[in-house]
Amino acid sequence: MKNSALSKLGQRSEDPAISWLMAVALSRPKLISLAAGFTDNESLPVRGARETLDEILRSKEKGQPALQYGTTQGDPVLRKLTAKDLQVADGASVAGKTYSPERMILTNGSQQMLYMTTEALCDAGDIVLLEDPTYFVYTSILQSHGIRARGIPLEQDGINLAKLEQTLKSLKKSGEIKRVKMLYLVTYFQNPTGVTTSFKKKLAALKLLRQYERAAGHPIYLLEDAAYRGLRFTGDDEKSALAAKSFSDRVIYAGTYSKPFATGTRVGFGISPAELHAVIMRIKGNHDFGSSILLQHLIAHAIVSRKYEEHVAHLQKRYAHKARVMKLAIQKNFPSQVEWWESKGGLYFWARLPKNIQTGTKSKIFAAALGNGVFYVPGELCYADDPTRRKPNHEMRLSFGGATEKNISAGIARLGEVLKMFLQK
Amino acid sequence: MKNSALSKLGQRSEDPAISWLMAVALSRPKLISLAAGFTDNESLPVRGARETLDEILRSKEKGQPALQYGTTQGDPVLRKLTAKDLQVADGASVAGKTYSPERMILTNGSQQMLYMTTEALCDAGDIVLLEDPTYFVYTSILQSHGIRARGIPLEQDGINLAKLEQTLKSLKKSGEIKRVKMLYLVTYFQNPTGVTTSFKKKLAALKLLRQYERAAGHPIYLLEDAAYRGLRFTGDDEKSALAAKSFSDRVIYAGTYSKPFATGTRVGFGISPAELHAVIMRIKGNHDFGSSILLQHLIAHAIVSRKYEEHVAHLQKRYAHKARVMKLAIQKNFPSQVEWWESKGGLYFWARLPKNIQTGTKSKIFAAALGNGVFYVPGELCYADDPTRRKPNHEMRLSFGGATEKNISAGIARLGEVLKMFLQK
Repeated sequence: MKNSALSKLGQRSEDPAISWLMAVALSRPKLISLAAGFTDNESLPVRGARETLDEILRSKEKGQPALQYGTTQGDPVLRKLTAKDLQVADGASVAGKTYSPERMILTNGSQQMLYMTTEALCDAGDIVLLEDPTYFVYTSILQSHGIRARGIPLEQDGINLAKLEQTLKSLKKSGEIKRVKMLYLVTYFQNPTGVTTSFKKKLAALKLLRQYERAAGHPIYLLEDAAYRGLRFTGDDEKSALAAKSFSDRVIYAGTYSKPFATGTRVGFGISPAELHAVIMRIKGNHDFGSSILLQHLIAHAIVSRKYEEHVAHLQKRYAHKARVMKLAIQKNFPSQVEWWESKGGLYFWARLPKNIQTGTKSKIFAAALGNGVFYVPGELCYADDPTRRKPNHEMRLSFGGATEKNISAGIARLGEVLKMFLQK
Repeated sequence: MKNSALSKLGQRSEDPAISWLMAVALSRPKLISLAAGFTDNESLPVRGARETLDEILRSKEKGQPALQYGTTQGDPVLRKLTAKDLQVADGASVAGKTYSPERMILTNGSQQMLYMTTEALCDAGDIVLLEDPTYFVYTSILQSHGIRARGIPLEQDGINLAKLEQTLKSLKKSGEIKRVKMLYLVTYFQNPTGVTTSFKKKLAALKLLRQYERAAGHPIYLLEDAAYRGLRFTGDDEKSALAAKSFSDRVIYAGTYSKPFATGTRVGFGISPAELHAVIMRIKGNHDFGSSILLQHLIAHAIVSRKYEEHVAHLQKRYAHKARVMKLAIQKNFPSQVEWWESKGGLYFWARLPKNIQTGTKSKIFAAALGNGVFYVPGELCYADDPTRRKPNHEMRLSFGGATEKNISAGIARLGEVLKMFLQK
């Protein structure tokens, strides 16, 4: 039996680049990894989680429900707390329909919300607009479903709006605008660049999308991935796109408690307009009919007891410090031709070499870095397949999340040595 | 904007019948529900879970890793324990490739394994063979993906093999055999009938499927859903299809720790042949890049400390007792025209009325039962859409899992009153 029984999705699914990176890391345990998007091990709320779980499971009323099935939509208490928190963060005076727990679903990390939203909206051949560069696991979702991507260059405050308009115009001209279903943006301390999209740009993007809906023949949504929103350590919080009042029926919001609290809990959430929310609920029913209720109760209790808030404050300080360590190390060790943006939250710095210097998995720099005991995520892996442009191959994502302060300094120093070899000739 | 942006999957997704049933239950809190597939609240291992979580999170070595990201494939310790346990249960003297932790993935309940397997193998228009009746959430997965179903009647020891052959023959004749990707069987204490498929029948089914592979042009898999295997309270364990030696490259096995331990934990697992396993891993990466590691560690520790084993033994006794209560109540209260099979495990009894008596959601009996304060899952909901036959509408699924002993007796008595009204005229 030579032929495969695989579906089109099964055939299209490719081994993600990240698997190869992880295999590299595992095979060289002494390597300093500035690649992994892990959160800080030392900071994990081991004691808080233990005390909270103990409190839940010791209680006559709370113990059994925490170990029983919940609903597909997820714990109403956690949804209520989350909706309220979002409303406050967005400075909205009333909850309205937008910040209603009814429109929210609890998911396995925000990742599952991205997957289900894409399933609900996109067929093979449809088009998703996204940032250049973008979150690489999202590009795998698109690729496996045969969905096409168009990358919009990213600036320091979000996507280049002129480029967005140009892309929409050209898609309208070619008739492909009918296949455009949404714009996907990672709006807070973006993975991989650390960029935060201004509320102004979100609003302008929504207005632009709406202008093309008539030509598209259907709504064009904004999928806002706010996975890193809780990891802000300096500057003000930007409002989410949910706060764009006349556009609340076009915004899908994906958030998570994993990164700001404990990645091992995998509790995420999503908000979507009514029609879409109903469909996503059905898809969730088919995926797993609801996430673990025990973990949802853990998060809800930690919020109520303020352990969550305290932990996030602690984490923000810790990451601010680690980012400072990385910044100083970069300033000290990187040659001046390397450009980078300062990070105000999240887990990443993004470094850009001169355009003729390659950083990809097959590049001399990547090999030299491995040889010098350090590795990073090559920038090329963070670009979706978009046949209208070549993937840039001169950038690197540097994570300060998982490494210790000592390793951040040492890793950047090692990387600096390699960069100097290639840049200062 | 009148047109929808939904994908075909989004458009096809229907509100599952079970949502309507749950809404009925919630709106009438005094109703005795013999419908829900919940596990027994009183039996949930609240203390064992608390002690185990405390042990993990108190430990210097174990605490942090339990709150960090795990791998997409899942905790190696739990995979090893699970593979070994399956090998022993199947009486296999060596692990070989079949019972290898490498071929196993940990999932969000066994449900996610069913979803991902179906994604990996089936396109819209493809055909899945399954039991008549079958697990109703699985029919929603098929329906939303536009996958066609062919139902094979179920007997007391598994599907009717002559009917399976007849169906395969007719699909070959029509040329549709090329679209047949797998046979889906719920092999232990089946939801909804309680039937366990004999190993002999599994083997015979695998042989039959193989005979049609040449005509299909690809492998035809057996997806074995063993979700209820741990809930056996009498009789011997049947071997799984994994034990069918020359067919190990055709068997996909989905199991779970949710039902035998705590449904709130949602820890399931799947084993599949190498080619398929690689694809399912990629799909899992896109879904959520791995289930909660904290819950995986909880189960692994409970297994090692034997708390899991003790709990399952306790649960089996408890369900055996509840099943006996239901059996006695049925014997006492149901008119003789109602046929039913005795349950040897799982959560369900299946009752068959004379064929001309309807039990569906719009039937007089269902309304009368609600009026009398009891409800059940109408049998018609447990049949997949198969255009080659009408859905039977004279059966009911009765669960003894969630209700108390008192409510089982009272609920069956109330249902008996209704049945007598309609049957003994």
